[in-house]
Amino acid sequence: MPRKTLAQAAATLGRRIDRLAKVSDERGATTRTFLSPAMRRANALVAGWMRGAGLSVREDRVGNLIGRLEAEGRGARTLLLGSHLDTVRDAGRFDGVLGVMLPIAALEVLRARGTRLPYSVEVLGFSEEEGVRFSSAYLGSKGYTGLLRRSDLALRDLDGVSVGEALATHNGRRLSPPAPAHAARELLGYVEAHIEQGPVLEARGLAAGVVPAIAGQTRARVTFRGRAGHAGTTPMALRRDALAGAAEFILAVEALARARPPLVATVGRVTARPGAANVIAGAAELSLDVRHPVDARRRAALARLRATARGISRRRGLALAIEVIQDNGAVACSGKLTALLARSVRSVQGRCLALPSGAGHDAVILSSLTPVAMLFVRCREGLSHHPDEFVHPRDLGVALGILVDFLTRLASRTRA
Amino acid sequence: MPRKTLAQAAATLGRRIDRLAKVSDERGATTRTFLSPAMRRANALVAGWMRGAGLSVREDRVGNLIGRLEAEGRGARTLLLGSHLDTVRDAGRFDGVLGVMLPIAALEVLRARGTRLPYSVEVLGFSEEEGVRFSSAYLGSKGYTGLLRRSDLALRDLDGVSVGEALATHNGRRLSPPAPAHAARELLGYVEAHIEQGPVLEARGLAAGVVPAIAGQTRARVTFRGRAGHAGTTPMALRRDALAGAAEFILAVEALARARPPLVATVGRVTARPGAANVIAGAAELSLDVRHPVDARRRAALARLRATARGISRRRGLALAIEVIQDNGAVACSGKLTALLARSVRSVQGRCLALPSGAGHDAVILSSLTPVAMLFVRCREGLSHHPDEFVHPRDLGVALGILVDFLTRLASRTRA
Repeated sequence: MPRKTLAQAAATLGRRIDRLAKVSDERGATTRTFLSPAMRRANALVAGWMRGAGLSVREDRVGNLIGRLEAEGRGARTLLLGSHLDTVRDAGRFDGVLGVMLPIAALEVLRARGTRLPYSVEVLGFSEEEGVRFSSAYLGSKGYTGLLRRSDLALRDLDGVSVGEALATHNGRRLSPPAPAHAARELLGYVEAHIEQGPVLEARGLAAGVVPAIAGQTRARVTFRGRAGHAGTTPMALRRDALAGAAEFILAVEALARARPPLVATVGRVTARPGAANVIAGAAELSLDVRHPVDARRRAALARLRATARGISRRRGLALAIEVIQDNGAVACSGKLTALLARSVRSVQGRCLALPSGAGHDAVILSSLTPVAMLFVRCREGLSHHPDEFVHPRDLGVALGILVDFLTRLASRTRA
Repeated sequence: MPRKTLAQAAATLGRRIDRLAKVSDERGATTRTFLSPAMRRANALVAGWMRGAGLSVREDRVGNLIGRLEAEGRGARTLLLGSHLDTVRDAGRFDGVLGVMLPIAALEVLRARGTRLPYSVEVLGFSEEEGVRFSSAYLGSKGYTGLLRRSDLALRDLDGVSVGEALATHNGRRLSPPAPAHAARELLGYVEAHIEQGPVLEARGLAAGVVPAIAGQTRARVTFRGRAGHAGTTPMALRRDALAGAAEFILAVEALARARPPLVATVGRVTARPGAANVIAGAAELSLDVRHPVDARRRAALARLRATARGISRRRGLALAIEVIQDNGAVACSGKLTALLARSVRSVQGRCLALPSGAGHDAVILSSLTPVAMLFVRCREGLSHHPDEFVHPRDLGVALGILVDFLTRLASRTRA
């Protein structure tokens, strides 16, 4: 076998990612949803590349693609590497895919170098992470970790097909919620490479960074109610303008988060009612999204924002309702694995930036089973979930170098 | 003929207004649109009351109901009194109707008292003011004053019927834009009574007030453009949040108008794009409505708000677009007629409040032909265009007393 250079392997990686982007349920766009025809073709294509890298390949009962490289000797533990192969509609080519294709490339480089790992490796291509078909995310990694519940199987898509029915068709028989693929003691951990989906690495001029934690997230619906009125005939002093109250709150949300990095807080949607140009808003409803890698800080920020909203309502004579829609705790990544990964990052690019993930990833689910670590890779303008999503070929090379270095370091640790 | 007391006449007025509210194109709601069956029935009903008050009645070619009381002797000028008989959908019972029914009641009181007026009177029930059917207001008063243009006749309703076609059907022949109903020299002026549609009289504890001017109005669409981004992964410092910029502007609009009464400025509608809870708004579009009885003040306020929006955009790295959709100058009411009306208001309720009208009225159109004055009558909670619109029976009596007093004062002036 020819000795592969990292650069050649990175170029191959780029071409494979491009090719996979053409495997789609929609013409002219990249769209692959849970158990769709394009997902089957994607699994078949990636399975071929896995086999080429020396992995034995299987698909589990929730459609996850699993490529396994067995360590020599018995009793070796397994390192999990992966991400998801499904996409949002009209997606980019890197989100998810990078975290599956990068380990395959890394294992090929090691094989070409003749490096044998003292631990087994499983490369995981999860079948569902984006939550497109069933409006519920992580079906793949939940299936792999034994977290899939009967309630998940009962979820239905827009055609009325349930997860359970779709899986029964896929497997040719009815499915009970599967058990975890591994006992925790068999595992070394889970490492996921993913595009950052944000602009921090680009702003710092770095190709990659490590993720100390995945932020907790609270989503709420905030409603201010005042009194609708005629925009021409109601003097300013006699108004109870719900939208003006909402505007004050939107600025308070921004100001609080600006003062407390890495807190992020966002109002992405606001609706004024009745919503006519010549009518003072009688009600204004807005979305609030608050995230922080430390749960206590997120909760403190929320308490502060509640108090701010109450103050605004009181001063303006408005009624206030705050309804929490979602509340997920933060996930801490493994200190040990992350420190080791950070050494690899420093060794390849000189510096390492630790940046919490504001978005959820399969690692959130895997953390219930085994220690997790994440490598973030720079993407242009922080753009994701969009066809213009872009990772520079040089950065693919850097990421590949880091993962190869990490697998090698972990090997010497595991031997020692 | 029995001697009618004001109280009796006010009670009759209230009953007639209640009865007219039942004349509707919709069951269970008050809805009368231009030339509709309900409008024909309303005109017939009001025509009967006009005749009962001694008026000769005709309908002009745009469906306006005109009741005329001729002065004795030749060469007398004509005072116009009126408002509109059409309504918005699911309307209240007073908006428009009050300004038609109140003069009829006043003329009945004068007749019962044996008072003869030295000027002719026309009571006008305009056929269209609300702009419901053709999305264009004032078709009735425009027809009366000779301001109806061929372009107005070409407007089409949702069924594709044009104003000209609807009028041709109504009249049994094609219509050219009609000439003014009167030469300006034949007229004494136009006096319109209308509910305030705002909360000022109620806040001051007054049944009625006079209107020195009808505010000019500018409507604009303001758009801030920033950069959409992931709400979880984009640090606050790297955001260009269009909605936060819009929120700052909404508060600036409110603050400016609060500082400069009687300026009113309103943002009644705002849309964030893409408008998802987990996406930073890449664009935010809002409606701006600015009104002031003095055009120069309105323009100065707009210039200030433009500068504020530019400052916000510059500071936040946003793009800004301001598109003026509508720009109507203020209409000054006649100083003489308003002063006379104010004397009547003081004589009946002790005090007189002058409050500019923030909403447009038929008087805006009539002002092109003759001096105008307006009497505002208190309505509960400033509510209009709503079935709960309410004028207290006592206030109807006060308004009636004022109009009777005014017609009598004007009579002694005209004689002198």
